[in-house]
Amino acid sequence: MGRGGRGAGIMGARMNEPDRELCEGFLFTDQYELTMAQLYFRAGIQDTPAQFDHFFRNNPDYGSHQAGYCINAGLEWLVRWMQSARIRPEDVEHLRTIPNRSGGSLFADDFLDWLRENGHFGALRMEAVPEGRVVHPDVPLTVVRGPLAAAQILESALLNRLNYQTLIATKASRIRHVAGESLFVDFGMRRAQDLGANAAARAALIGGADFSSNTGVSLALGYPPKGTHAHSMVQAFMALGGDEREAFRRYAEVYPDDCILLVDTVDTLESGIPNAIKVFEELRRGGHTPVGVRLDSGDLAYLAVQAARQLDAAGFPDCKIVLSNQLDERVIQQVVGQVREEAGRAGLDADAVVQRLTYGVGTHLVTSSGAPALDGVYKLVGLKRDGEWHPAVKVSENPAKVPNPGGKSVWRLYDRRGMATADLLCRLAEDPRGDDPLVLRHPVVETAQRSIARDDVSDMESLLAPVLEPGREPVALPDIDELRRRRDRDLERLDPGVKRIVNPHVYHVSLSQRLWRLKQELIARATPARSESSSPAAAPRARGTPGRA
Amino acid sequence: MGRGGRGAGIMGARMNEPDRELCEGFLFTDQYELTMAQLYFRAGIQDTPAQFDHFFRNNPDYGSHQAGYCINAGLEWLVRWMQSARIRPEDVEHLRTIPNRSGGSLFADDFLDWLRENGHFGALRMEAVPEGRVVHPDVPLTVVRGPLAAAQILESALLNRLNYQTLIATKASRIRHVAGESLFVDFGMRRAQDLGANAAARAALIGGADFSSNTGVSLALGYPPKGTHAHSMVQAFMALGGDEREAFRRYAEVYPDDCILLVDTVDTLESGIPNAIKVFEELRRGGHTPVGVRLDSGDLAYLAVQAARQLDAAGFPDCKIVLSNQLDERVIQQVVGQVREEAGRAGLDADAVVQRLTYGVGTHLVTSSGAPALDGVYKLVGLKRDGEWHPAVKVSENPAKVPNPGGKSVWRLYDRRGMATADLLCRLAEDPRGDDPLVLRHPVVETAQRSIARDDVSDMESLLAPVLEPGREPVALPDIDELRRRRDRDLERLDPGVKRIVNPHVYHVSLSQRLWRLKQELIARATPARSESSSPAAAPRARGTPGRA
Repeated sequence: MGRGGRGAGIMGARMNEPDRELCEGFLFTDQYELTMAQLYFRAGIQDTPAQFDHFFRNNPDYGSHQAGYCINAGLEWLVRWMQSARIRPEDVEHLRTIPNRSGGSLFADDFLDWLRENGHFGALRMEAVPEGRVVHPDVPLTVVRGPLAAAQILESALLNRLNYQTLIATKASRIRHVAGESLFVDFGMRRAQDLGANAAARAALIGGADFSSNTGVSLALGYPPKGTHAHSMVQAFMALGGDEREAFRRYAEVYPDDCILLVDTVDTLESGIPNAIKVFEELRRGGHTPVGVRLDSGDLAYLAVQAARQLDAAGFPDCKIVLSNQLDERVIQQVVGQVREEAGRAGLDADAVVQRLTYGVGTHLVTSSGAPALDGVYKLVGLKRDGEWHPAVKVSENPAKVPNPGGKSVWRLYDRRGMATADLLCRLAEDPRGDDPLVLRHPVVETAQRSIARDDVSDMESLLAPVLEPGREPVALPDIDELRRRRDRDLERLDPGVKRIVNPHVYHVSLSQRLWRLKQELIARATPARSESSSPAAAPRARGTPGRA
Repeated sequence: MGRGGRGAGIMGARMNEPDRELCEGFLFTDQYELTMAQLYFRAGIQDTPAQFDHFFRNNPDYGSHQAGYCINAGLEWLVRWMQSARIRPEDVEHLRTIPNRSGGSLFADDFLDWLRENGHFGALRMEAVPEGRVVHPDVPLTVVRGPLAAAQILESALLNRLNYQTLIATKASRIRHVAGESLFVDFGMRRAQDLGANAAARAALIGGADFSSNTGVSLALGYPPKGTHAHSMVQAFMALGGDEREAFRRYAEVYPDDCILLVDTVDTLESGIPNAIKVFEELRRGGHTPVGVRLDSGDLAYLAVQAARQLDAAGFPDCKIVLSNQLDERVIQQVVGQVREEAGRAGLDADAVVQRLTYGVGTHLVTSSGAPALDGVYKLVGLKRDGEWHPAVKVSENPAKVPNPGGKSVWRLYDRRGMATADLLCRLAEDPRGDDPLVLRHPVVETAQRSIARDDVSDMESLLAPVLEPGREPVALPDIDELRRRRDRDLERLDPGVKRIVNPHVYHVSLSQRLWRLKQELIARATPARSESSSPAAAPRARGTPGRA
């Protein structure tokens, strides 16, 4: 790799006529997937059956707070993409232009011929934990089996689609948790990554947002978009010689039963709320019910209490108070706390003020601020040779990063109260439901294990479900409402300590005895001779400097 | 707004047949743009000429470090979208399904009829600071003039497209700064927001990445994608009964002149690098030149020095050492510092080791980790009434957030050394080039101003250039190479203190006397009577609690 390796504009043309399919279709992938595919083709193993597991290693850590669980999301859009993505002749010609260092093409003609026929995902089988479900680190969320080359090429797009929606569904679930029964709307489109805004809206709805401001994708998903007006509306009437009250009045005339007024264009307490109340009184006289006011700047808790006081005094105790501006779950918690305190001091019913609050959450929702990426990975765990599956292992200097090998089943264990108590990964061949006691091994620490009497387990649920089967119609994927119900059901069965916004209790993900032993055997076989103390199975060591200990 | 407002699946169908144009076309906008447009239509001001300014308020602050400037990016993709986005009859029908609270449609038939004819951006005029240029807070980067409703509807998409690419081009420019002459490649696709990965790759190339791993968009932009292999390639050959060295050998056979080997699948120092060297020796015997090794885990600086030592000893002093895994500009700075220190101790030429380093940057680049959103805004600054432009103002409780009103010209001032010394915003009617001295006013603090003798200014450059003109072909937009040259030229003329990675010097953005006075007059006119001490022109106050001072 040298900087001189690039010719200026190798295609001889910039994207004047943007070829969206080139950017968003089959070649929406990292190049190394394709160079590996060519190697597999050259080695004659392109069709060798392989299994890749997708999982994430850590719940999002936002710095001052962290998630105790995630909400699985993104699967439907991935599956849709897989069904439509197919390499086109022009994509092949694009690949042919990529130079190697000896003056030829990086991709050879015979490989490109093969790719032209085989550049699709139709031969892959996929199982997954259903969207909307509560999920935990190290658990295989998506399991892909099929020809090695196709399963490899899928990696980049799969991670791209699943990492982000899971990250945002998780953030939305936390915001929903602190918002209680209040309405919570995604306002983040303008701060999302380009078209990623649409994935953000979908994931937010799965995770707990009631609505999104993003019009197109809301309509496509069957949810009415939400939104009223910006400062510019008030400014426009002011620049034309009117004032804030005239702007509010014009708005109320057009939206008499849907009137939410943004009250901080001039001065929230001195101008905005008094003007809104005047207009609300006019609406009331006309037989209409005003909906609320929106606060978008300043000390939101203080202003919310003052707004409540003024609205109550004017006889509008049911008017909502919409808050926006840099909200996230921690800020909402703080605002609610301060509102309770100040409402009491102002002689208001604190519960009533909190209940009329509504939240518009933008930047911090769609960027998952503090933890802007989920560390989802996609690891080869097995290959089929001579009719038999051979587990694959990657030895890491950090034992927590050694993936669990081979085909696996995933079980969620519920205790006598019906609460989820652990996720258990087993070898595919074993059925843990007959084990008594159930032995749960820590995935890394040899000495950490626990036993549970079978009687103490009220239910064991298999989490992976079929999604794609070659040559068959894909399993019908449910709508967003159903995903939201799944989320609610799982959250009801999750320990409140795991749902805590700050410093949550750690949910256990364990290995069966047999899976644990397989993993240790493979590590021992793959690792060059080392002193016992630095074996990857030992407790985590200092960051990757084994030779220096 | 109530939670009951939503019918389950108002369209009666989920996105089974995804309608991408619905999600990505004209309705890729926040609903409030459309409710405001209906209000403007009802008030008869939908075609009133309006001016909106797009600008950002603060350079990205990553927490432990912050940007002193930004690189402007995103314009071309925005302009393309504006030229193709046009409301379709089916979009109108979707909008008609959105309910209001009185049981009817939120959008009335006559407005929807109007929108069906006028739902496009063909009547808008646009000026912008060209892509690739160094830009600063509060400077209008994009100026939109035209019919109020169309200019309003554009807001969400404009911010979505420009905020993100500018954010990432800026991050890439910082990474380029610390990477020096080393190659730097975008690896971030899997951690980006869905299709936002493509915008990330483009912005990274504009800002300073040499290449991207993202195949499709690289090819579309005329840059060859980069990438070699993942751990899975080594694992695959191991699972089939081979070992790491066999995997490397197979890779080298297919890519003899492009051979970069990932050496940390088993054990970097004990296995990976020794095996790579064996294979490199075989390549050399065959007349080929191996390219390098990649390190993706552990203490990258320590391992890089050890890799250099082993490669040197084997006679491969030109082999590159590619580093990846959670890099950003601060980590690269630390790695380079540590490499210099350890290389010296190991008896190596520290400069030579640093020069052979190459960086693959993923997550922290595409998420702009620490500052995952740019706070770009789009503000109404003027309306034309009775043939005359009337400036619009938004009074904020935070004076730094009051936008600069009316039409403006933007000038970059260069000092006698040819270095950029300030950006100056003026009223449209004035030409500051004749002023001597030039008076530069602080945008907020009344007492802060400075004068510069005209002789001390070697050049005054107008920054805004025409982009779109109704009824004309859009101005030809340059390719990425030209944007990169613009960036380089601007960075050469930017004070090193402003480019500093941590705690940069603040670049001055100033107002002319006349613009400053206009702003003060408008604020005074719009603000309800207040005590002098709390006027928005005063120094910044506590966060939005004026009534409590």
